[in-house]
Amino acid sequence: MNAESCAAVLDEGAMLRLRTLVRLDPELLVTDFTAPEAAPALREAEVLVTGWGCPPLTEESLNLMPALRAVVHTAGSVKGLMTEAAWARDLAVTSAAEANARPVAEYTVAAIVFANKRILQAARTYAAARTQLNPLRLYPDVGNYRRTIGVVGASRIGRRVIGLLGSYDVEVLVYDPYLARQDATALGAEPASLGELAARSDVVTVHAPELPETRHLLDAEHLALMRDGATLINTARGSLVDTDALTAHLVSGRLNAVLDVTEPDVLPADSPLYDLPNVLLTPHIAGSLGTELTRLADTATDELDRYLRGLPFAHAVHPAALSRSA
Amino acid sequence: MNAESCAAVLDEGAMLRLRTLVRLDPELLVTDFTAPEAAPALREAEVLVTGWGCPPLTEESLNLMPALRAVVHTAGSVKGLMTEAAWARDLAVTSAAEANARPVAEYTVAAIVFANKRILQAARTYAAARTQLNPLRLYPDVGNYRRTIGVVGASRIGRRVIGLLGSYDVEVLVYDPYLARQDATALGAEPASLGELAARSDVVTVHAPELPETRHLLDAEHLALMRDGATLINTARGSLVDTDALTAHLVSGRLNAVLDVTEPDVLPADSPLYDLPNVLLTPHIAGSLGTELTRLADTATDELDRYLRGLPFAHAVHPAALSRSA
Repeated sequence: MNAESCAAVLDEGAMLRLRTLVRLDPELLVTDFTAPEAAPALREAEVLVTGWGCPPLTEESLNLMPALRAVVHTAGSVKGLMTEAAWARDLAVTSAAEANARPVAEYTVAAIVFANKRILQAARTYAAARTQLNPLRLYPDVGNYRRTIGVVGASRIGRRVIGLLGSYDVEVLVYDPYLARQDATALGAEPASLGELAARSDVVTVHAPELPETRHLLDAEHLALMRDGATLINTARGSLVDTDALTAHLVSGRLNAVLDVTEPDVLPADSPLYDLPNVLLTPHIAGSLGTELTRLADTATDELDRYLRGLPFAHAVHPAALSRSA
Repeated sequence: MNAESCAAVLDEGAMLRLRTLVRLDPELLVTDFTAPEAAPALREAEVLVTGWGCPPLTEESLNLMPALRAVVHTAGSVKGLMTEAAWARDLAVTSAAEANARPVAEYTVAAIVFANKRILQAARTYAAARTQLNPLRLYPDVGNYRRTIGVVGASRIGRRVIGLLGSYDVEVLVYDPYLARQDATALGAEPASLGELAARSDVVTVHAPELPETRHLLDAEHLALMRDGATLINTARGSLVDTDALTAHLVSGRLNAVLDVTEPDVLPADSPLYDLPNVLLTPHIAGSLGTELTRLADTATDELDRYLRGLPFAHAVHPAALSRSA
């Protein structure tokens, strides 16, 4: 992994916990498998602890690690890391995708509550008025009771959002072409087509993977189907939403949005989305940050502990699932 | 109740549901028990459906309602309504305090997630920078993992906050002089003194009733004990917090706050709290609003249904508990 990830995820406490379990050189951070100074450690390595910035495990790299049996990834997706050659080695692979899903789901549910209650709009109105307001009269249509939340993608994050929403008085619709009807019901959601979900939801929240076929999944047509006053939340990838089409609905005030990701990653400086009162735009922070990085390290430590006790990984990654996940 | 509450809480759908259960004159809204036009209905009334703005049930009023057996209150506290004389009549009383607790708890938990992740601060930084930011570097100390949340008051709302936090990776402290240690543990919280709670918590959230002895419960001394960078959330009553002392910590940037109530109710127009980037100030909207008012009506309907089936109220109010609740 790169030095910045290593410092952020594997802090002193995490390093200490790892070193109670395994033999690990705390001075050696491998950022290039072919670096000569890495060779002795790689030759012996049974497990790689990887993270953001890890180079791909090519055939050539793998040949430097004849003893390798497992990869413990401290970040979400192993797609940048695991090559066909790596899968062919029959390595046990685990990731912290589940741990990484939690802050994103938590951000999303908080954003849903804030959006349905128009909390930020009310704060702005109050700061402008600085006088007694009558919330009953000002906000006749707000609230988090009997709202319909549309979850696009029953990914780890999507499922966790649905799980958290189980404590709220809301109806959940889910769109996922790979989710069987009975599995949706078991999650506590009603399966729906994307069009039906867009048309019926007070909040549409996107938790689909970035794949060629999910580009502009929320296109102009689906955005036009959304109800007046509905909110779109995107914490997944900017490319999943047609930003131009969405921007038009936001500028007109017809829709609201909470966007942690956009296309492009950083919007042009003259984008209206930076200033609109009906948009909350955050700089890709919904994922693990700060103390949440410790959860990634803790997950890796737990997985190493299972490995040492001969147990299968709790969050094993299988190649078959990768073609339709992040 | 007053006309505004009636229109907001008992909308057409709620009225229809009520009228399937009981005999009710949809044209008669009683705002004054001594009004002559109310007399015939009050003489026969077995149940009062009350709400915000209901006048107190004095001896004199009660004498106009010889058949009265129950009060179904569609708002939170019955304190303004139930007099000693009313309790002496041995009426069955129920309120929508539990229903009203839900939106407040939901606002609170969303505010906790936003506060610990510095979501609004990040949005502001991003809007100012309009360029690629490095969240790992910018926000080394944020996050909702292993945070300590201090809940002041194991009220209905306090308990519901603790319940919702059960889905999060946080430690919960609770301060409530009337809560037994084993009851705190059963809720999933660690009991603490107010001083210990203030000193250990990343977020302190106030859910105590407004009573003479709770005025400035969070006083200058307790606020000074709070950790640098901690957040105070108040959705209860402004008088529970020493606003001047808090303001000093907010102006200096040492603490953050989410305030849905203040003392006075509306801050002076020159209060710095309207503009501080570390303060979210909302105009008393955490309670039931919009669709959440329908929940109050639904609760009342459910209680009436129980009454008609000879069952005790699910949310019966007993006078003994009122001296230490809202």
